[in-house]
Amino acid sequence: MNEFDLIRRYFSRPVPAGYLGGGDDCALLPIGVGLQLATSTDLLIEGRHFLPGADPRCLGHKALAVNISDLAAMGAKPLGCVLGLSLPRVDERWLSEFSDGFYSLAEQAACPLVGGDTTRSDGIVISVTVYGQVDPALALRRDAARLGDDIWVTGTLGAPHVALQFLTHKLSPDPELLAAVRPALERPQPPWKFAQHLPGLAHAALDISDGLLQDLGHILAASQYGAVLHYACLPIDPALDKLNEPLRREAALAGGDVYQLCFTAAPNHRAAIEKLANEHAVQVSRIGFIQEPPGLVVLDDSGVPLSVAHAGFDHFS
Amino acid sequence: MNEFDLIRRYFSRPVPAGYLGGGDDCALLPIGVGLQLATSTDLLIEGRHFLPGADPRCLGHKALAVNISDLAAMGAKPLGCVLGLSLPRVDERWLSEFSDGFYSLAEQAACPLVGGDTTRSDGIVISVTVYGQVDPALALRRDAARLGDDIWVTGTLGAPHVALQFLTHKLSPDPELLAAVRPALERPQPPWKFAQHLPGLAHAALDISDGLLQDLGHILAASQYGAVLHYACLPIDPALDKLNEPLRREAALAGGDVYQLCFTAAPNHRAAIEKLANEHAVQVSRIGFIQEPPGLVVLDDSGVPLSVAHAGFDHFS
Repeated sequence: MNEFDLIRRYFSRPVPAGYLGGGDDCALLPIGVGLQLATSTDLLIEGRHFLPGADPRCLGHKALAVNISDLAAMGAKPLGCVLGLSLPRVDERWLSEFSDGFYSLAEQAACPLVGGDTTRSDGIVISVTVYGQVDPALALRRDAARLGDDIWVTGTLGAPHVALQFLTHKLSPDPELLAAVRPALERPQPPWKFAQHLPGLAHAALDISDGLLQDLGHILAASQYGAVLHYACLPIDPALDKLNEPLRREAALAGGDVYQLCFTAAPNHRAAIEKLANEHAVQVSRIGFIQEPPGLVVLDDSGVPLSVAHAGFDHFS
Repeated sequence: MNEFDLIRRYFSRPVPAGYLGGGDDCALLPIGVGLQLATSTDLLIEGRHFLPGADPRCLGHKALAVNISDLAAMGAKPLGCVLGLSLPRVDERWLSEFSDGFYSLAEQAACPLVGGDTTRSDGIVISVTVYGQVDPALALRRDAARLGDDIWVTGTLGAPHVALQFLTHKLSPDPELLAAVRPALERPQPPWKFAQHLPGLAHAALDISDGLLQDLGHILAASQYGAVLHYACLPIDPALDKLNEPLRREAALAGGDVYQLCFTAAPNHRAAIEKLANEHAVQVSRIGFIQEPPGLVVLDDSGVPLSVAHAGFDHFS
């Protein structure tokens, strides 16, 4: 029984009218006319979500970044966050750097840390909950993709996956390549500001945490459509050009930890989306479209479907 | 360096205008005209906040109850909650009972579970964040006590402390007494409904988690006043009559895990508070008053100050 089965079985009782419960990047709670609270929580466990000895400044940044990414994926504007932190011991250098990394992103994203809880445990446990606000009629839900929508991604794909392969010794060392891909893993930069302006332009969105194919599969399942992707249009991190093609493809299509957005929008908004992206210095790529037939097809340069079974595609066909 | 020092040193940077940051039962975030979001988060670690082998149904109840207690302590109306849960293994009986305990209180308190995160770790880790709403002008902040206010507590005192002493073998076994005090420890019932109607009647409030003297000390420190308590007025759980007086006194004054409210209110609201308490079947006791001289004095039946140094009083004198 995996994590998702667990949630489904024991923690998916219905929510009241006006609420959006589990299964999207954020839950939505009604807080007033024309306004919803978007919220998301993440539990990060040492040895599972980050490596023992991880740089505390990066960890502080990332613990908040993965949650801000969830707000961005709903098109919500950050309001604030709380932090639960459990540590095996008091290490002032660690605390100071973790705190700096956390606050630095909180300030950039206008997502002030307003409270929390600290305690002790054998390994490091980090719990972050973020709050944002969004117009309920325009929130970027996973089930909101429409027929004929373009599919877009922000940023680049693949670098965090490759960095993790190096750090867990699944790839033979290449210090130069590691240096190029590591920042994407350790200091993800979700496009929170750009994302606040997407409601009204985009329909469905989510953040790429488990890999493009798996995550886009969630949009397709929730929206009950299929999709076509053009492999040549994927914004694969240029650092990955050094890798052999199967590795590069796997990183691009199945690599997680990206914390960039995948979203769908009507073709008549292309110019507006590109303008918005320009204004916020966010790279956007149009990688495919939503179609009626179910399933997810990735086409190569010649329009031939790629075999992407190794990339987790089968789960969502 | 203890927990509070840690928080102060590394996680207490200023919050923007209109926010209330750490140091109260809830943080407050502006979410609209005349409305604030009250939020609190708690991290519960197996072996630290609950005993290994704790009854999962009670644990589910308590994990939410301690957070709802924080909302009650601000006078906030519950809006919803999220749950982070990390488990060493999938134990379906455990999950089913934990989930039942959690949902049962969530339904009673109209605090729907809207989302969460599940993962694995060596010991059980539970992270709960609650959301509520409150009128910012009337929120029951710790710094809001006024000179001459009555001091009130809800419910009874002492039982959870005694139960914990039994369960950790610090008292010799007494199965009958344990049975009488155990529910107060394992299934705390914060007065959330009563508390929603306190704004406008009460000034300052908090929940009694660390013991009456220590917690009331937080109100006094934040409000810059002192207080007099009448020991004879304390609503000590009648089950504790079996104990010797020093134990009983320690449990009442310093015993934590109570999750009832201590609040202050002007004397002209006495009748209204008693009426409200009656309507919600909440026991309320008027136990003392706020005075100008700093410090906290507990008077015995003859008006003689009790020595309460053993009860943690010295921290707040």
